[in-house]
Amino acid sequence: MTEPLAPGATIGILGGGQLGRMLSVAASRLGLKTHIYEPGANPPAADVAHRVMTAGYDDTTALAAFAASVDVITYEFENIPTAALDQLEALRPIRPNRNALAISQDRISEKAFLNEIGLTTAPWAIVTTAADLDAALTRIGAPAILKTTRLGYDGKGQARIMAPADAPAALAEMQGAPAVLEGFVDFSREISVIAARGLTGEVAAYDPGENVHRAGILHTTTVPARISSAQRSDAVLIAARILNALDYVGVMGVELFVTPAGLLVNEIAPRVHNSGHWTQQGCAVDQFEQHIRAVAGWPLGDGSRYADVEMLNLIGADVAQVPTLAREGNTAIHLYGKTEAKAGRKMGHINRILPRT
Amino acid sequence: MTEPLAPGATIGILGGGQLGRMLSVAASRLGLKTHIYEPGANPPAADVAHRVMTAGYDDTTALAAFAASVDVITYEFENIPTAALDQLEALRPIRPNRNALAISQDRISEKAFLNEIGLTTAPWAIVTTAADLDAALTRIGAPAILKTTRLGYDGKGQARIMAPADAPAALAEMQGAPAVLEGFVDFSREISVIAARGLTGEVAAYDPGENVHRAGILHTTTVPARISSAQRSDAVLIAARILNALDYVGVMGVELFVTPAGLLVNEIAPRVHNSGHWTQQGCAVDQFEQHIRAVAGWPLGDGSRYADVEMLNLIGADVAQVPTLAREGNTAIHLYGKTEAKAGRKMGHINRILPRT
Repeated sequence: MTEPLAPGATIGILGGGQLGRMLSVAASRLGLKTHIYEPGANPPAADVAHRVMTAGYDDTTALAAFAASVDVITYEFENIPTAALDQLEALRPIRPNRNALAISQDRISEKAFLNEIGLTTAPWAIVTTAADLDAALTRIGAPAILKTTRLGYDGKGQARIMAPADAPAALAEMQGAPAVLEGFVDFSREISVIAARGLTGEVAAYDPGENVHRAGILHTTTVPARISSAQRSDAVLIAARILNALDYVGVMGVELFVTPAGLLVNEIAPRVHNSGHWTQQGCAVDQFEQHIRAVAGWPLGDGSRYADVEMLNLIGADVAQVPTLAREGNTAIHLYGKTEAKAGRKMGHINRILPRT
Repeated sequence: MTEPLAPGATIGILGGGQLGRMLSVAASRLGLKTHIYEPGANPPAADVAHRVMTAGYDDTTALAAFAASVDVITYEFENIPTAALDQLEALRPIRPNRNALAISQDRISEKAFLNEIGLTTAPWAIVTTAADLDAALTRIGAPAILKTTRLGYDGKGQARIMAPADAPAALAEMQGAPAVLEGFVDFSREISVIAARGLTGEVAAYDPGENVHRAGILHTTTVPARISSAQRSDAVLIAARILNALDYVGVMGVELFVTPAGLLVNEIAPRVHNSGHWTQQGCAVDQFEQHIRAVAGWPLGDGSRYADVEMLNLIGADVAQVPTLAREGNTAIHLYGKTEAKAGRKMGHINRILPRT
C-alpha cells in the first residue's frame, strides 16, 4: 500500500495505553478509525477507539482477525513479542518497520546502530559477567550506570555505580539479564527532538523540548529549550539522520544530552513520546496526528510551533491536583482515564501555555 | 448532583453528530466517558464515544436504560421531542436546562425572551395567515425574511420578501407552519460570542468571532473579529445577561449583528456552536471541553485565547480539498467521519493559525 489511507480506513494499534488513546483521538480528526490490540481489559484507549480486541500476543487467531480488520498496523510500545510481529507482518504493513523496532528494543543494538551512522553516545560496554563489568569499569570509569539491555523504561532495570565497590550489587540487580554499562555524561541539559518521516521520505521535526526528570521519570518538557540555534539545527539533523538510516515511517522520540563537546544521543523511541505531548497545544498538527499521518501515508505537518508550552506529567497521586489545575488559566488538562493512581503511574499531563518570550 | 463529576463518570449526550463527536473527545481529556443516544446507525460520535445507544426518541425502554447508565444528560441539538425530555428529566439532570431548550426551540419565544430581558433584536411579528403577513409587512416593511418558528437551521425554512408582492410565495414556503417575519437589519458584520456558565454561576466567554456565511451556511469564523473594544465588551455582557437570565449551565452560541445602533441579537443556540470551533486551536480549554466542564460541574476555563485563528467549514464536496489542505502549514484538520459528501452537509472544518496582528 503506497496510496494515502482514505477517510473511513482503519489503523491497527498494538497497545491500548495513553499513547494509543491519544493516537486514536488524532486519527478521528482525520476521519480514520482505530482498532486497538491489547491483552489487558478496559485499557485507556478503549474509550475513544472504534474497536478494541482484548487478546494476548500469543493468540494467533485473534492476531489474524485483527490484521484482517485493519489497513495498516502501528504500535505504541516497543516490547511486542517477535512471533506476533512475524505473523502480523505477513498480513499487513507494520509502520514503523521491524528493523527500527528491533534496534530500539535492545540497548546494545541501539547504541551500535547510532555509533555506526556516526552519532555520539555515552561510552558503553556489554556486561554479562562480573569480569565483563570489571573490565568495562576500568575502561569507562566510575561513576557509571548499569542497565538491562531490554525492557527498560522510566528508570526500571538500572543501577548506579558511583565507585568500583558498587559493582557486585549493581550486577545482582540485573538478575542475570544481559546488561550494558554506560559512562556518566557531564551534560548541562537533556533535550528531545520529536521527528517524523513520511511514506515518501519527507522528514519534519518539532522544535526540541527541554526535559526535566524526577526519580527517573519525565517530569516536565518545556519549549523552547534553552539551547543555541546551532544546537537546535544539530538536534534536528541528528534525528533526520536516524530516521533516514532506518527508512523509518512514523514519529520517533530522540533524547539528546547537551554537553560542552556537542550533542550526545541518549536513547531513541520508535513511537510517539511523552516529551512530545506539548505539541497538543503548541502545533496545528500534534505528534499523535503526525504519527497517524505518516503511517497512513498522508502528507506530514511541517512541525511549526505557535505557542511556548510547558508539559507537566501527573504521576500517581499528582492527579489529585486536577481540581486545582482546572482553575488555572491557559492550562490544558489531559487525563488518561485510569482509575487507580498507583505510585509512578502516568495518570495524565497538563500543557501550560507560556507567555511568549 | 452538585459535586463535580469524578473521572470515570459518564455524560449522556443526546445526538451523535459532529458536535457529539467533539464533545466526546473533550470528555476523554478530562477522564470522563460519554454515552451517545442517537436514532441513526453509525453516527459520527460513535467512533470516539465509550458507548452508543441506537434507538428512537419514542423508545421509552431505551431512554430509561440510557438515563440509568449516565450521571448527567446534555444534548448537541435543539429539536429533541418533549416527551423524551420529560422522561429523561425525571431520571437525571439535563444541562442546559429545559427552559433554555424550550426557548431556543421556538423563534417566537426566543425573541420574546430576548426583548424581555432588555436585548434588541430585529423587528419581528408572528405570522400564521396571509392577513398576519400583510399587517406585519406594513409595520416592519420590506425587505424582510419569513422563517418557520421551529426546526430551522442552516437557512432551511426561510423565505426572503424583497417587496410585498413576494408575500404569497413566501407564505406558501412555510407549508402552513407557524412563522415569524423578521425585518432586515442593516448590519456591517455578524459576530458570535461563545459563552459558558458553570454550575456555581460563574460565566466565561471567548473572544467574539466574525462570521461569514455562504448560501445560508456558516463559511468562516475569524478571531479576532474586526470590532471595537467597546463592542467586544458589549457582546460579552449580552451573552452573560442571557446565560444568567436562564440560570444556564453549559456553552451557548450567541449570534449578534453589528449595526450603527449597537449590537442586535440574531439568535441563540443552547449548545456548542459551529462558530466556536476555532477554540480547538486558539484556547487551552476549547468550547467542547468548556461545555463538558460546565455540565460536569467542573471549574470553567477562563476563555483566554493564545492564537489568532480562521475556521473554515468543509461543506459537501469541499472535503475533496483535504489532501491539499493537509500540505498547508499551521492548518489543523477536523473531519467528522461521514462517508457520503452530500451537498450542504458539514463534513469537517479546518482551523488556520494566523500570524498575530
